[in-house]
Amino acid sequence: MLLDALHCRNKKRPPIWLMRQAGRYLPEYRALREGRTLLDMFHDPKTIVEVTKLPLDILQVDAAILFSDILTVFDGLGIRYDFQEGVGPVVQDSPDRIEMQDPHVAYVNVIEAIEQLKEELEVPLLGFAGAPFTVASYLIEGGSSRDLKKTKQWLFRDPEGFTKLLDQITVATIEYLNCQVRAGVDAIQLFDSWANALSIYEFRTYCLEPMRKIMKAVDHPTLLFCRGSSLFAPELAKLQPAAISVDWSGDLLAIRDQIPRSIALQGNLDPMLLYASKEKIAEGADRLLFGMKDDPGFIFNLGHGLLPDIPVENVKFLVDHVRRS
Amino acid sequence: MLLDALHCRNKKRPPIWLMRQAGRYLPEYRALREGRTLLDMFHDPKTIVEVTKLPLDILQVDAAILFSDILTVFDGLGIRYDFQEGVGPVVQDSPDRIEMQDPHVAYVNVIEAIEQLKEELEVPLLGFAGAPFTVASYLIEGGSSRDLKKTKQWLFRDPEGFTKLLDQITVATIEYLNCQVRAGVDAIQLFDSWANALSIYEFRTYCLEPMRKIMKAVDHPTLLFCRGSSLFAPELAKLQPAAISVDWSGDLLAIRDQIPRSIALQGNLDPMLLYASKEKIAEGADRLLFGMKDDPGFIFNLGHGLLPDIPVENVKFLVDHVRRS
Repeated sequence: MLLDALHCRNKKRPPIWLMRQAGRYLPEYRALREGRTLLDMFHDPKTIVEVTKLPLDILQVDAAILFSDILTVFDGLGIRYDFQEGVGPVVQDSPDRIEMQDPHVAYVNVIEAIEQLKEELEVPLLGFAGAPFTVASYLIEGGSSRDLKKTKQWLFRDPEGFTKLLDQITVATIEYLNCQVRAGVDAIQLFDSWANALSIYEFRTYCLEPMRKIMKAVDHPTLLFCRGSSLFAPELAKLQPAAISVDWSGDLLAIRDQIPRSIALQGNLDPMLLYASKEKIAEGADRLLFGMKDDPGFIFNLGHGLLPDIPVENVKFLVDHVRRS
Repeated sequence: MLLDALHCRNKKRPPIWLMRQAGRYLPEYRALREGRTLLDMFHDPKTIVEVTKLPLDILQVDAAILFSDILTVFDGLGIRYDFQEGVGPVVQDSPDRIEMQDPHVAYVNVIEAIEQLKEELEVPLLGFAGAPFTVASYLIEGGSSRDLKKTKQWLFRDPEGFTKLLDQITVATIEYLNCQVRAGVDAIQLFDSWANALSIYEFRTYCLEPMRKIMKAVDHPTLLFCRGSSLFAPELAKLQPAAISVDWSGDLLAIRDQIPRSIALQGNLDPMLLYASKEKIAEGADRLLFGMKDDPGFIFNLGHGLLPDIPVENVKFLVDHVRRS
């Protein structure tokens, strides 16, 4: 059903999966994390398989997405990183420490996990990677940042140097994604989570161009997500991806009118609506379901990832509600 | 010149002023702040006058904007607040502590400062206030917040209670702005700085409606700013403000095509571009100047406020560049 929608030929109800569907909001996930580091978990094929499959039984979603992180591409760039409790991602090396690694060694755990998942899964498996601009921002800022100031200072002051860094990350990302494709993922999603820090002019140069290079080198159905996609969707459409994954800001129906019908649209419920009553959740979901009714390229999703303290029962309710539509 | 542009009948070069033009990036401002609290400064008419006038001589901008803060409306709501070094705004009372004050007492310092400024200034003076949604968010979160989670939880779970809070803030804001208008400001700008946390549906209810009430009750040329305005500009245009102040995300020329020619457009250079070389700054400014050439309703500004560590000489260069255009 998801693959049909990705090809804009789905005749049934819209497929649904949720960004961060395997995450801390699930008690089963919290139990698996107990006493272990995230870095550990992302490098253990058995854990990757287990966590990727977790939400399938619990939620009955229509797709699995690889349990991984935007930062895992650093394994192929020789950059050290970690995830610190209460802090988030921490990147320990600076951009000048990039040393390209053999991707088949760097990503061996992910490859192994995908191969095993493909033997076991009954729904499509999405691979993913961070888009180069967002990955670069983690490397430059040393972690998450509110305004990407260092990153933007660099790109405004030294566009050539910044482009060179993006190129290095792009090469590694292509290798990483091709490893995922060869191991069997059915489609890939690129996350340019911090693209909304840029104006449309810088977006074109520093987000769109690296994504274009990746799509040229990785021949596989691709979903493009960025924060800011409510505004930037027509830009993303220029790359002719299989789908655009839209943040929660805009009216998806109005965005549909700006995007060729050959491109699927995924989105775009505000995850924070899942703190509300079931009645409110149904109302928000129905607005999307009604607006996108009979659209053969509509994939139901959130506009951003699930948050750790969202009640599981509300998430289940949403998925049930869409499945019954 | 600014007032002509606000009425979309400017025949000369575009007027320019900059959000946070009187701020920490100016050594003269930092000297004035030495040994004093911000709260103190916002309540001293002499300081308000002095700081408001600071950038006029230094930068030669075409408008002054009242030295004040989004939080000063709390004086009329009986809510205590402060500004903590390295932390930012801190609101000490919760929403249930609102007690409406006599506006002529609460805002006496601001009124006095405006009256004096109007005697001394040779350029138009802009008054301003936070828009109710943004003010409510400070009250609910207790200060700045990355994702406005508490605010959004409240509005999703208890829309009626949240609307009641917005109504209280709206009443105080109307009183505050009418004090400013009677004291002599030439136009007012409403800042809905955190509007971009909302989807277009909630934006319509919780941002647009309070602004509509304010514009109905305050009969004076009004500029509407929100982060997210690159996407929400057509929504803001429904209120028929004098001008829409656009964030740095979008292409101002493309936005012009969506907005009636009777509404002025202000914006929208990315303030972080001011970290770059003069050549880059000129390039960014020229794109706007060329794109909006001969538009009688164009006001040159940034897409957000100046940052404390932006080099003064780059700010001066920008203003000179626009003035020579």
